[in-house]
Amino acid sequence: MPAAVSPLAPATFPDLPQVAGVRFATAAAGLRYKNRTDVMLAVCDPGTSIAGVFTRSSTRSAPVRDCEAKIGFDGAEGAEGAAILVNSGNSNAFTGKAGEGAVERVAAAVAEVTGLPAARVFTSSTGVIGERLPDDRITAALGELTESLDPSGIEPAARAIMTTDTFPKGCARVVEIDGQKVTIAGIAKGSGMIAPDMATMLVYIFTDAKVARPLLQEMLSELTDRTFNCITVDGDTSTSDTLLLAATGKSAEVTARGVPFEDALHEVMLDLSHQVVRDGEGATKFVEVAVTGAADDVDARKVASSIANSPLVKTAIAGEDPNWGRIVMAVGKSGAKADRDTLSIRFGDIEVARDGWVSPDYAEEKGAAYMKGQELVIRVDLGLGDGTATMWTCDLTHAYIQINADYRS
Amino acid sequence: MPAAVSPLAPATFPDLPQVAGVRFATAAAGLRYKNRTDVMLAVCDPGTSIAGVFTRSSTRSAPVRDCEAKIGFDGAEGAEGAAILVNSGNSNAFTGKAGEGAVERVAAAVAEVTGLPAARVFTSSTGVIGERLPDDRITAALGELTESLDPSGIEPAARAIMTTDTFPKGCARVVEIDGQKVTIAGIAKGSGMIAPDMATMLVYIFTDAKVARPLLQEMLSELTDRTFNCITVDGDTSTSDTLLLAATGKSAEVTARGVPFEDALHEVMLDLSHQVVRDGEGATKFVEVAVTGAADDVDARKVASSIANSPLVKTAIAGEDPNWGRIVMAVGKSGAKADRDTLSIRFGDIEVARDGWVSPDYAEEKGAAYMKGQELVIRVDLGLGDGTATMWTCDLTHAYIQINADYRS
Repeated sequence: MPAAVSPLAPATFPDLPQVAGVRFATAAAGLRYKNRTDVMLAVCDPGTSIAGVFTRSSTRSAPVRDCEAKIGFDGAEGAEGAAILVNSGNSNAFTGKAGEGAVERVAAAVAEVTGLPAARVFTSSTGVIGERLPDDRITAALGELTESLDPSGIEPAARAIMTTDTFPKGCARVVEIDGQKVTIAGIAKGSGMIAPDMATMLVYIFTDAKVARPLLQEMLSELTDRTFNCITVDGDTSTSDTLLLAATGKSAEVTARGVPFEDALHEVMLDLSHQVVRDGEGATKFVEVAVTGAADDVDARKVASSIANSPLVKTAIAGEDPNWGRIVMAVGKSGAKADRDTLSIRFGDIEVARDGWVSPDYAEEKGAAYMKGQELVIRVDLGLGDGTATMWTCDLTHAYIQINADYRS
Repeated sequence: MPAAVSPLAPATFPDLPQVAGVRFATAAAGLRYKNRTDVMLAVCDPGTSIAGVFTRSSTRSAPVRDCEAKIGFDGAEGAEGAAILVNSGNSNAFTGKAGEGAVERVAAAVAEVTGLPAARVFTSSTGVIGERLPDDRITAALGELTESLDPSGIEPAARAIMTTDTFPKGCARVVEIDGQKVTIAGIAKGSGMIAPDMATMLVYIFTDAKVARPLLQEMLSELTDRTFNCITVDGDTSTSDTLLLAATGKSAEVTARGVPFEDALHEVMLDLSHQVVRDGEGATKFVEVAVTGAADDVDARKVASSIANSPLVKTAIAGEDPNWGRIVMAVGKSGAKADRDTLSIRFGDIEVARDGWVSPDYAEEKGAAYMKGQELVIRVDLGLGDGTATMWTCDLTHAYIQINADYRS
C-alpha cells in the first residue's frame, strides 16, 4: 500500500502567522469524501488586490475560466474585498454548460453572504473530472462558513483542499518594510497530475502588504516560472491549476520588485512547490535536476524537463540504481543541442561522466551509495554555453501505479 | 514478477519464408548474458541496396553514427553486397572515442571475413549504455558466424537481438510482381525506451525485390512515419534506434510506389511496430488511440501522443478504470487546438462524452466492461477539422516499475 504520509513530508505543518485582513473557514459539505472537510472559504477585506495564474490546458475547468475572466479587475482601485471559495473531491471540469451554471450559483451565493460583488468571488474545484458538481451542498454550507471565519484558520483551510495529498502544505515568511512587519503566508495542494509549463496546482497565498495589481501580477507570473513551472511529478497537467495571490494592503506598501518582498514571496512559492513534489504520488526521493552549460536557457529547460519527466530515469531512482546511461538517453531525446564529448554528469558532487564517457575516477559503489539518499541532485553540464535551468521531481514507484490504477474506482 | 512472456504476445513466431540473397548466423559471444545468443550476422549478396532510418537522439550511439555515415552509398550501383552485425547486451552508447574504435574494429573484422568493404558493413548494438563494448568477444565469434550462415536462419537472428523483450518479433509478406514472387521478411527488438518521433528501435527487413536506393529510402522513411514513429511504450527514446531495409535484387524490380510492394512493406512494418508495443515492458493491454476531427494532422498527432504517453491514462487502463476524465486532461495539455463543446470521446464503439460533458446514454458499467478487454481503442474526435492521427501504446503497470527499477543492478 502507498504510505499514509509521504516519507518526504515535513515533520509538522509550519506555524503560519496570521495575515491581517484575511479570514478563513472550512466545512464538510460531503461532496465526495466522508468525515473530512472539503470546502474552504477565504474572505479578504476591502482594499485587497488579487493576482492569479492558471493552467493553459484547453480543457480547463469552469471555475478556472471564471477566475480568468475576473482576475484583471480590482473594482474601484481595490476598494472591494474579495472571497476565494475552494472545494475538493470534484473538479467541475468537462461538465459542459452545467459546470458554468454551478460556478455562477456558487459565486452568487458567496457574494450574497459576504456582501461582495460576484465579480470579486473566485472559486476553484479539484478532484474527479466529468462529474456534476453538487453545488447545492456547497451553498448549503455557506451559512456555517461565514459564521466561523477566523484569521487563524489557514491550517484547516490547507487540509480542506487536499485530494490525494498525504499532508497539508503551508509556508510563510515575515519581512520588514518601512519599519512595518509584512507577512506572506500560503497554502497549496497537489500530488499527481503535476507538470510544469502550465501554471500550477491549487495555491493560495496571502499577504498584508499593499501592492498594486499590475506589480503583484508581474511578480507572481515571473516567480511562477521559476517555482511551480519547474516541478513535475508525472508530466500530466491538471485541468484545475490555479494560483491566487491576495494582498490585503493592511501593512506597508510595496512599490518595487526585489528585496525584501519579492524575495520572500519567491521563498514561499519555492517552498510550496517543493512540498508538492515531496507529496508526489508514491514519491520516496526528492530530486533536483540542475542543468548548466546549455546553449541557452530554453535548451537548459528542455534537458531538465526531459530528465525530470523520463520514466526510465525515475524508475532507476526508485530502484536506487545509479543508471547514468538513462540520463544520457534523456539528454539525447530532449531536442536541445548537446555534444557527447562536452557533456558531464554528476550525482551530487560525484562526477560520473565527462569527455563522452564514464569519468576515470567514478566507481559504481560511489554512485550506488549516493542513490540511497532521500534528497538527490542530478547535475548535467552541457559544456556549450551559459544556459541554466533547475527543475524538481520525484521518483516513479509502485505506489504511483497503485494510487492511479484505482483512484476513482 | 513481470510475466515471463507478455500476455499480448502472438501465440507463435511466424513461419518466415526465406529471402533470396540473405543468409543469417548467430552466436553466443558472452557480452553480457549467459546461455543465450547475443550476436547476429546477416550477409546480403552483391546487388543489394540498403535504406535506413535512425534515432535523432543527440546522444545516439557510435554504431548509429557509423550507419548514418555509410547509408547513402551503395558502392558501384549496388555492385557490392552488405553485412549487418548486431549485438545485444551492450549498446556501445556514450562510450567516447573508445566506442568509435570498437565499431571500426568490428566492421573491419566483418569486412575481412566476408570479403566486403568496411563501408558496406553496418553494425548495431543494444543494451546497457555507457559500458565499454568487449568487441574482441564479437570478433572472436566471427569465424563461427561466417561458417554457419544459413538462408533459413532469420528466427534465431530475431532471438539473438532481444534484450528485455519477452518474445522474438518477426513478420513477412509475399506479393507477386511481374509474375515473380517477391518476399519481404523482417525482425525487430524493442520493449522499453520506446517513443515515437525519433525513428524506431532495432529492426531489420529484407526483401529479394530489386529496388533502387533512392526509391527504397523514400518508401522506408515515409512508412516509418506511419508505423514505428506512431508507437510509444514509455515516451523514452533509445540512443540505438536503427531500422535497416535491404533489397537483394534477386527477384522482380520495383520501380514505383504503392501496390503491391509498398503496401506489403507497410504491413510488415506496421505488424512489427505493433509487436514492439505488445512486448511493451509490463504491458497487459494493447491500445489504439485514434484521433479525428483535429484542425490538422499535426494537431491530431499532438493529441494522440499526449494521450498515448500520459501516465495517468495508462495507469487507469492498467486498472481497467474507464476514467475518461484523464483523456480530457490529456487532450487539454496537448497544446493542440481543442474545444470542450465539440470534443467527443469513445471507448471502441461506446460513446462516452460529447457536447462538453458525459454522453446522456453512457453508463459507467459499459465503460468498465469494455476496459476489461485486452485490445482497446480510444477514439477522440475534436470536431474542428479534417486532421487525423493514430498511435499505438500499452498500459503502465507494476511490472514496468519492477523491470526498470532494477534492470541493470
